[in-house]
Amino acid sequence: LQSRLPAVGTTIFSRMSALAAQHGAVNLGQGFPDFACDPKLVDMVTVAMREGFNQYPIGTGARVLRQAIADKIARVYGWQYDVNTEITVTPGATEALTTAILCSVHPGDEVIVIEPAYDSYLPAIELAGGVPLLVQMEVAEHGGYSVPWPRLAAAVSERTRMIIINTPHNPTGSVLRAADLAALADIVRDTEILILSDEVYEHMVFDGEQHESMCRHPELAQRAFVVSSFGKTYHVTGWKVGYVAAPAMLMAEFRKVHQYNVFSVNTPMQHGFASYMDDPAPYVNLPAFYQRKRDLFRKGLEGSRFELLPCDGTYFQCVRYDRISSLPEAEFAEWLTAEVKVAAIPVSAFYRDGKDSGIVRFCFAKKDETLALALERLARV
Amino acid sequence: LQSRLPAVGTTIFSRMSALAAQHGAVNLGQGFPDFACDPKLVDMVTVAMREGFNQYPIGTGARVLRQAIADKIARVYGWQYDVNTEITVTPGATEALTTAILCSVHPGDEVIVIEPAYDSYLPAIELAGGVPLLVQMEVAEHGGYSVPWPRLAAAVSERTRMIIINTPHNPTGSVLRAADLAALADIVRDTEILILSDEVYEHMVFDGEQHESMCRHPELAQRAFVVSSFGKTYHVTGWKVGYVAAPAMLMAEFRKVHQYNVFSVNTPMQHGFASYMDDPAPYVNLPAFYQRKRDLFRKGLEGSRFELLPCDGTYFQCVRYDRISSLPEAEFAEWLTAEVKVAAIPVSAFYRDGKDSGIVRFCFAKKDETLALALERLARV
Ligand SMILES: CSCCC(=O)C(=O)O
Ligand SMILES: CSCCC(=O)C(=O)O
Repeated sequence: LQSRLPAVGTTIFSRMSALAAQHGAVNLGQGFPDFACDPKLVDMVTVAMREGFNQYPIGTGARVLRQAIADKIARVYGWQYDVNTEITVTPGATEALTTAILCSVHPGDEVIVIEPAYDSYLPAIELAGGVPLLVQMEVAEHGGYSVPWPRLAAAVSERTRMIIINTPHNPTGSVLRAADLAALADIVRDTEILILSDEVYEHMVFDGEQHESMCRHPELAQRAFVVSSFGKTYHVTGWKVGYVAAPAMLMAEFRKVHQYNVFSVNTPMQHGFASYMDDPAPYVNLPAFYQRKRDLFRKGLEGSRFELLPCDGTYFQCVRYDRISSLPEAEFAEWLTAEVKVAAIPVSAFYRDGKDSGIVRFCFAKKDETLALALERLARV
Repeated sequence: LQSRLPAVGTTIFSRMSALAAQHGAVNLGQGFPDFACDPKLVDMVTVAMREGFNQYPIGTGARVLRQAIADKIARVYGWQYDVNTEITVTPGATEALTTAILCSVHPGDEVIVIEPAYDSYLPAIELAGGVPLLVQMEVAEHGGYSVPWPRLAAAVSERTRMIIINTPHNPTGSVLRAADLAALADIVRDTEILILSDEVYEHMVFDGEQHESMCRHPELAQRAFVVSSFGKTYHVTGWKVGYVAAPAMLMAEFRKVHQYNVFSVNTPMQHGFASYMDDPAPYVNLPAFYQRKRDLFRKGLEGSRFELLPCDGTYFQCVRYDRISSLPEAEFAEWLTAEVKVAAIPVSAFYRDGKDSGIVRFCFAKKDETLALALERLARV
């Protein structure tokens, strides 16, 4: 069988999690919390199952959940999506991203991808027959990553169908600011270029800054698929519920593919989230919750030989390790997992050509005890 | 935005369910039970959530569930899949079908589809850039549908990549027998043609016959993606968990696409099913359970002006209505929903060219009271 994705192996996240398990390492690799979600959320799903919400929901998503999503977006970002035609619930953000690409990218269309890039974007573009154009982020002296808008503008051509944005950014923890979105708006104005905006870490922006969702910027929202994830916001990455919001014209195309890709999403989980979202506190408090963990983790590494890169958002902390080792990232991450017993993700996995910057990514979405144990081990390196 | 699926609208199942709701009709259209699942299953999912199975499972599926699936297949069909490399849990059968097509069909490859065909096959082939070759089933005097193997054999060419099989068959309720599988084996022998076998109604074969899974036929199993669905077997269509089983070489390609399409499947549901599958009784008893409902429904229609077609499997009963109306199927189904207050699915929705045979499909996976109410209304027609 000739492969449709010849360059693809098993995702780095699955491989590092397996390696962490094999070596009994603290798993700061794959991004997921190791603490419990709110028991109230579990109870709400249980109630939904007991009340009989166990059959196919509407393919676009349970109406109550679409309403809760639309209300939240309006409240937080000031953009009003139509509940019936502009919101679709998805089995996680991955399906939302891939389906957005499959429904809009035609063979030969170019898609601009900013690297380092989450690992599902390129295979999805390849499946669609699209051509990825890669624009690498710039790294400042102090280690901060930023999008080089003039270089991105230069990559735009008549064949550009879509630009993929990810803010807060995985793996670098960088966050787009209003000026970035203005630059993006300048680039797409008077074109038919679509934006696919991966905003799954929307509620993890630190230091009093705000998340610059496409939904804050009507000029961008009107041409964007905006993707988010309940798993990340509510500490249940394994529940696999997310959503996409987009103008009705784009959403109509999304739904055509979505209905034949997965048809619909787990019913009781949808009803559980709909009830749970009545209270905005969980996401309102999330930045403070994760900022505390970020600070705890950074403080713990300050005395170590790792060099901390900035972290303005997400639950990821990148570090340079050139004072420790000259191993390539992938080997260093394996060594760290096997010998130091702390798993990390090599940032090279986010570059198509495997670009090596001597940087690995740690996930700090962990219990304080877990972070303390990891820090103790990392301090010894 | 130019459509990737220009011919596609909203699925007939979603449309008829919406129409049923609008008219307060008994919904015998979309296939799903209106009775509760086993409360033990709900409890097992709740336990899994409370025990903290809420983060990403392994992308291929929770090990305990893959083990339970492999054991069941070995027990029922005598084929032993490797738990690690040959089973993948999917968010429902739809994703399994679409991903199997996306991972193996290259642009220009031909895929043989037997019509009437479940409505997701053709859009998935189209997304992959494949070319569907349609072979229509034959209808006998008494209304029984069968696959015309010689005509199917004649459709095979060097460009044939895959044949899609569905048994028990939706919408016709026909079931392949051992002789059919022998004919299929003759066709594919000495070729590299793959089989995609949609067996979601595997535990709904009636009158003491057995389900002829590809897994009973090693010659076919070794080239087949076999797809099934927990939703249909355990009365929870809204939980969206299914699986695909295939030889390791095929599964490796499936997983490449799967991991970037959806990454993984709801964790607590997987653990719930794994526990629940310890007991084979639910699926062992399913044929008798649905045969009783089939007989009840058929008996109720015997005095009516509907003409019953055979139903050897699935939870669908097809009927001819030419003694009642000369309306096309789609309009008749709408009339039935709006005026008689019983929703049905027009079989024409399963033909690319909308072929009209004056037949609609009823789903009898309903409480006896629901069936009684529907029968009372249908008898008056
Ligand atoms: C879908 S597994 C990967 C989780 C994640 O987003 C990450 O670790 O970057
Ligand atoms: C996925 S909705 C359709 C359910 C079904 O399989 C049918 O009604 O045929």
